[in-house]
Amino acid sequence: MANRYSVLFEPVKIGPVETRNRFYQVPHCDGMGHLRPRAEAAVRGMKAEGGWGVVCNQETEIHPTSDLSPYAEGRLWDDRDVPALRLTTEAIHAHGSLAGIELAHNGQSAPNWLSRAPSLAPSETAIDGGFPKQARAMDKSDIRDLRRWHRDAALRARDAGFDIIYVYAGHHMTLAHHFLLPQYNDRSDEYGGSLENRLRLTRELLQDTLEAVGDRCAVAFRFAVDEMAGPDAMQSAEEGRAVVELLAEMPDLWDVNVAGWPNDSATSRFAPSEGYQTGYIDFVKQVTSKPVVGVGRFTSPDMMASLVRKGVLDLIGAARPSISDPFLPEKIAQDRVEDIRECIGCNICVSADTLGVPIRCTQNPTMGEEWRRGWHPEKIEPKGDEDQALVVGAGPAGLECAMQLARRGYHVTLAEAGDSLGGRALREGDLPGLSAWKRVSDYRVADLRQRANAEIFLESPLSAAEIHELGIPNVFLATGARWRRDGKGRSARRGLPIAPGARVFTPDDIMAGRLPPAGKVVIHDDDQGYLAGVIAGQLAARGLDVTFVTPAPVVSPFTAYTLEQERIQASLIESGVTLVTGHAVSRVDEDGCRAACVYTGRERSLDCESVVLVTERERDTTLHEALREAPGALRHLQLIGDAHAPGLIADAVYSGHKAARDFERTPEEIDSQLFRREIPALNEW
Amino acid sequence: MANRYSVLFEPVKIGPVETRNRFYQVPHCDGMGHLRPRAEAAVRGMKAEGGWGVVCNQETEIHPTSDLSPYAEGRLWDDRDVPALRLTTEAIHAHGSLAGIELAHNGQSAPNWLSRAPSLAPSETAIDGGFPKQARAMDKSDIRDLRRWHRDAALRARDAGFDIIYVYAGHHMTLAHHFLLPQYNDRSDEYGGSLENRLRLTRELLQDTLEAVGDRCAVAFRFAVDEMAGPDAMQSAEEGRAVVELLAEMPDLWDVNVAGWPNDSATSRFAPSEGYQTGYIDFVKQVTSKPVVGVGRFTSPDMMASLVRKGVLDLIGAARPSISDPFLPEKIAQDRVEDIRECIGCNICVSADTLGVPIRCTQNPTMGEEWRRGWHPEKIEPKGDEDQALVVGAGPAGLECAMQLARRGYHVTLAEAGDSLGGRALREGDLPGLSAWKRVSDYRVADLRQRANAEIFLESPLSAAEIHELGIPNVFLATGARWRRDGKGRSARRGLPIAPGARVFTPDDIMAGRLPPAGKVVIHDDDQGYLAGVIAGQLAARGLDVTFVTPAPVVSPFTAYTLEQERIQASLIESGVTLVTGHAVSRVDEDGCRAACVYTGRERSLDCESVVLVTERERDTTLHEALREAPGALRHLQLIGDAHAPGLIADAVYSGHKAARDFERTPEEIDSQLFRREIPALNEW
Repeated sequence: MANRYSVLFEPVKIGPVETRNRFYQVPHCDGMGHLRPRAEAAVRGMKAEGGWGVVCNQETEIHPTSDLSPYAEGRLWDDRDVPALRLTTEAIHAHGSLAGIELAHNGQSAPNWLSRAPSLAPSETAIDGGFPKQARAMDKSDIRDLRRWHRDAALRARDAGFDIIYVYAGHHMTLAHHFLLPQYNDRSDEYGGSLENRLRLTRELLQDTLEAVGDRCAVAFRFAVDEMAGPDAMQSAEEGRAVVELLAEMPDLWDVNVAGWPNDSATSRFAPSEGYQTGYIDFVKQVTSKPVVGVGRFTSPDMMASLVRKGVLDLIGAARPSISDPFLPEKIAQDRVEDIRECIGCNICVSADTLGVPIRCTQNPTMGEEWRRGWHPEKIEPKGDEDQALVVGAGPAGLECAMQLARRGYHVTLAEAGDSLGGRALREGDLPGLSAWKRVSDYRVADLRQRANAEIFLESPLSAAEIHELGIPNVFLATGARWRRDGKGRSARRGLPIAPGARVFTPDDIMAGRLPPAGKVVIHDDDQGYLAGVIAGQLAARGLDVTFVTPAPVVSPFTAYTLEQERIQASLIESGVTLVTGHAVSRVDEDGCRAACVYTGRERSLDCESVVLVTERERDTTLHEALREAPGALRHLQLIGDAHAPGLIADAVYSGHKAARDFERTPEEIDSQLFRREIPALNEW
Repeated sequence: MANRYSVLFEPVKIGPVETRNRFYQVPHCDGMGHLRPRAEAAVRGMKAEGGWGVVCNQETEIHPTSDLSPYAEGRLWDDRDVPALRLTTEAIHAHGSLAGIELAHNGQSAPNWLSRAPSLAPSETAIDGGFPKQARAMDKSDIRDLRRWHRDAALRARDAGFDIIYVYAGHHMTLAHHFLLPQYNDRSDEYGGSLENRLRLTRELLQDTLEAVGDRCAVAFRFAVDEMAGPDAMQSAEEGRAVVELLAEMPDLWDVNVAGWPNDSATSRFAPSEGYQTGYIDFVKQVTSKPVVGVGRFTSPDMMASLVRKGVLDLIGAARPSISDPFLPEKIAQDRVEDIRECIGCNICVSADTLGVPIRCTQNPTMGEEWRRGWHPEKIEPKGDEDQALVVGAGPAGLECAMQLARRGYHVTLAEAGDSLGGRALREGDLPGLSAWKRVSDYRVADLRQRANAEIFLESPLSAAEIHELGIPNVFLATGARWRRDGKGRSARRGLPIAPGARVFTPDDIMAGRLPPAGKVVIHDDDQGYLAGVIAGQLAARGLDVTFVTPAPVVSPFTAYTLEQERIQASLIESGVTLVTGHAVSRVDEDGCRAACVYTGRERSLDCESVVLVTERERDTTLHEALREAPGALRHLQLIGDAHAPGLIADAVYSGHKAARDFERTPEEIDSQLFRREIPALNEW
C-alpha cells in the first residue's frame, strides 16, 4: 500500500484487538436485524468484503424490557438469539474484519409492544412517541437487573464472535443516555444530580463489560457529545467534554457523534457538507489516548486522510457512505477513487428502518439484496446470447440500466431526447438543498463514458419506426413521467375542477424555471413526499406569498421517515409560509382556490394568483405502446423506472438495475424464485 | 342441545362443507400472521376449542405485488408459506371446526416495501397512505397474472387444509373492491364503466376459485355492501344490492359488511349498539339462497338467535366478540350466558395489528398469549403451597388479579378504599361514549361475587400496619395512579410553571364531576390517548368554549391505531372546539396560558379561565413503599396495574392477570423462560 492514502490503511489497536485499517462502519440500522438474520449477515459481510476493517451491527436489544418491535433491530435477549448473530460475525470474519455489536437498552424509547413488559427510565415519565403509556423510574434493583442483563448480553455477544462490544449513550435512545441528561433524569440518589452521578450508570456498564469480556473484546463507548440544542442541552464544549474527561481512558474506543438521530444522520438537504460533525468532536483526541472514531458522511479520501493526519480521528467512521458504496475502502486502496459511489445524503436508507422494512439505497441498488437476490455491488453476471441493447432515456433508471448492461458486456446504446444526462436527478438537483441528487447521474455518466461498449446519444428522441430502423432487438424504455396538470391525485382521483383562466404550475414547470409571478401562490401537496416542501421553500425565498395546502396533518409527511419532517416544517414556518394542513384543494379558480377539510368536508377559500399542483405523475408510455403494438423484430421490450411505476429516485435506480440483472433470464426463472425469504422456524424454541 | 338458543347450534351447509353450528369467526387481523405462525395457529385453535364452528384467518397476501410489510398479515406467495398455514388449519380442525382463509390482493393499498414490486391498481393512481409512490393501471396481462396468482393461492390454501376460501372485496383494501368502485376505477375497457364491467374481475375470481377448489372447499365472497359515505358512494340500497343480485347464487357463502374498516370495526364510542350493521345487510338473504354471515359486535345470544329466526343471518359473524371471549359459543351451549366476557368495542385488538405487533384485548388478557405463554382464557393452574392472598384496590388490575387468584383456589381478600368496584373502568365509563368500559368491571365483579373463596370489602383503605394485622402473607397492590396537576409530561418533563391563582383541572376532577365553570377552557393533551379528546367533547357539549392544545399534529393521535382518530377530530371540529395542534402549553397563568410551537418554539397566548391538564399520571405507591420498608411477615408483595406502570386499561388487566399466573413461580422460572418466540429459520429457503 503505497498510495497517497496509505495512512488510511494502517492497522489500529483497539483494546485487545486490532483492525487491519482505519475504515470503520459504525453501528447503523438496516431493517434486517432479528427478523432477517441472514440478510443482516450478508449486508455486513459485504462491507467487510469491500474493505471496512471494522463492521458493526446495529442497536441490539438486550432484554424484553427493551423491545423495539415492530422495528427490526438487533436482538440479544437470551441464548436463543446467538445463532443468528453468529452468522453476522462469521460473515465479517470471513474477510478479515472485526465485528462490533451495539448493545442497547432503550429505556423509555422502547414501548415494548411485543414483550408487553413495563418500560424503564431514570425518572417517572411518559414513554417516547405519542402513546398513552408511562415508564417506571428504575429503583436500585432495576439498576442491578439492567447491569446483569447488559453483562449477560456482553458475554453472549462475545460467544457469538463479536470483537468489539459497545456501551451506548447516544441518539436520546438508550438508558445510559437518558441517565446522563438532566431533562430525563431528576433522581435524587447517587444516579442523579451531578454529572458524576448521572454518569454513574455508564461507568458501571463500562466497568461490567470490561470485566466480563475485556480480555478478549474491545469495549467501545458510543457517546453523543452534543445535543445540538443550545445552552440548555448538553454541548461539546461543556458537559460533553467533561464526560470524555471523566471517562477518558476507560473505554478501549471512543465512538463519538451528535444527538439526536436527525442531527447525527442529517441529510444533505440540511447538512450539505461532508464532515459536518467534526467541529463538535475534534476535541476528543486531545482528552483521551484511546482511538477515536467519528462520522460526517465522509466520502472524500482526502478529507479522511487529513483528519487522521491532523489527529482528529484515528478511525474513519461511516454509516451511509458504507451503504452507498460497501467497496469504498477497496476503491481507495486500488487508487480507484473516481469509482466511489458517493452517498447523496437522502436518508432513504433510514426510511427503510423507520418503516420497518429492509434497507435500500438510492445510489446502491444492491443494498439489502445481497442475500435474498444474491446481488453484489461490484459484480454482475456476464451477458448471455444477446449482444446489443438500446436504452431510451438517461434518467436514473436508464443510466443505471445502461451501466449495468454495459458491465455485463452488451453493446449498449443509450439515447436521450434532451440535451443532458441525468433526467430528474439533474432537474431536482437544481432545486435548493438537493444538489447532491446529481451524484446519481454523475457517477453513472462517468462510468459509462469510460466504457468502449457504451454509446451515448444526446438530443436523440426516438420514434418506434426509428427504433426498428436501428435494428437493436432489445429495448429498455426509461421514458420517465411528467407531473400532472389536472390535479388528479389521492385526494381527487378524478382530477380537480380547474377554471380555464387559472394559472396552474407543476413541479416540471418549476424545475424548468417557469415560476409563478410575484404574489400569492397556493402549493397543493397531494404527493406527500419531499418535492412540494422544497418548492414552497424556494418560492418563499424568492419573495412569493406562499400558502401550503396538504391533506396530511403535517408538511411533507414522508420525510418523517428520512428524519427531516420537523426541520422542513420549522423552516417553512420560519420562511413565512402559511400552512393549511388537513385540507385538500377541491377546485381552482382564476383568482384563488378552494380547499376542503379532510375531516369535515368544510370548504374554505384561499386567495391566490397561481397554484402549484404537486399531485401525481403521468407515465410517458407513448413509445412503449407503439412498440408493443408493432414489435417488429424486437425480442425484448421493457418499461423501467418512473415510466413503469413512478416513485422515488431510489425506486427508479432499482428498477433499472433489476431489469439489467434479469435480462436474458426467462420469466419463469424470475417468477419462480422471486427471492429468498426469511420465514419463522416452525419447530424450535 | 335443548336450550333456548339451540337454533344457534344447528349445522349449516356451506357449499361442499358443513359447519357444526352458526358461530362464525370472520377473518380478522391479529398481528401474528406470517411473522408468528405458531401464535397464529394457537389464536385460531383457541376459537375452535371455544366452539366457533368456522374460524377464519386474516387477509392473506397472494403475491409479492401485494406486500403489506411491515404488518404481519397472512402470506401465501408460494409453496414456502404452506407449512405455516397448515399449523392453523390443523389447530382448527383439531376441534371439529372449519378453517377459512381470506385471500387478498391489496392492489394500491399494498406499498410493497419488502418486495419492492410495483403496486397494481385498476387505474393509474397514487398508492394509499402518504407515500410518494404510484400504482400502475393493470393491463390485460396484469389481470391474467392476478387471476393466476389467485387461483394458485386457492390451490395452495386447499392443500394447506382450508375448507372455506375467500374472494375479498371489502374495506377499500383489495383489488376486487378497487375495481368495483368508480372512485378507483376509471377504465374504459370491459373492466370499467358499468357495474357489470366493474364487477367482472370479482366474477372471474369467483369463477376461477370455484373451478380450482370448489369440489372440496366452499368459496366465500366477502363484500362491503355499503361505504357509509352517502349517495356518491356505494350504498346498500343501490349498487350494493345490485352486486348481490348479480352474483346471488355464485359464491357458496356471502360474508357481508360495510366499508371502510373504521365503519366495519366501529368502536363502541361511535357505534354503541350491538348489531349496528344489520340495517345495511338485512336485504342480502332476500336476494340469495346461499348462507349469509354478518357482523355487528354481537355478544347477546338473544339477538343472535333472533337474527337467525328472522331470516337476517344464517351464521353469526364475529371478530371482536370472539377475541374478547373465544368461548362465547361454548358458554351459550352450556347455558352460561352470564359468563360471557363481552367485548367493550375499544379496538385495542385493532391497535395491535395497526402497530404491527401481536394482538391483545382489554377484556381477555390471554388473547395473543396462547402459544408463547401457554395461557388459556378459561383455564389456569391450581394454586401451589400458599393459601391466601390480599388484593388492594378494585380497579381493572385488582379485579382481574383477584378473580384469577380465586380461580386458582386461593382464599382472596379484595379491599377497595372507595365505595364502588371498578376503579378507572367505572370512572372513565361515566364519560360520554365510554360506558362499555364498565363491562371490564361488571364481568369481574359478577364472577368474584359468585366465588365462595373471594371476599370483597368496600370503603376499606388499608395502611401498612393494618395489612400486617390482617396476617395475609401475600399482597398484591393495585393502588392505581392519579393524573398529575403540575403539567409534567413528555413536553414538559420538569412540569409547567403554573400561577398560584390559575384554575387547573385534571381528568380525575372531570371524572369526579368537578368541571370547569362556563367560559373559556384550554385542554392540554400531552397524553396523546383518547381521554383528552373525550373530555373536550364533553365540555364542548356543556357549552364551554374549548381550545384543544396538543403537541401532536392531530387530536388524540393514538386513536389512529384504534381507527377512531378521524372521527374524533371531525367531531371536535363540528362541536366548535378550537384545535391548536403542534403546540404544547408552556405556562399557565391566572387568565390564560401560553403554548409553544413544537417546530419553532414560538409562543402564543391563549385566553382562558380554566385549564385541563391531561399530561401524565402519578403512581400511588405509598402503601408499597411502606410495606417494602417494613415487610414484616409478608412473603409476596407486588405492585400491579397503573400503580406499577400507567398505561391502557388493557395493560392494567394484563398486569393483574400475569401477576396471578406468576404467583408462586420463582423469579428464575419467570425470567429464564420469558416466553416462547418465533425466530427466523437459519437454514431453509
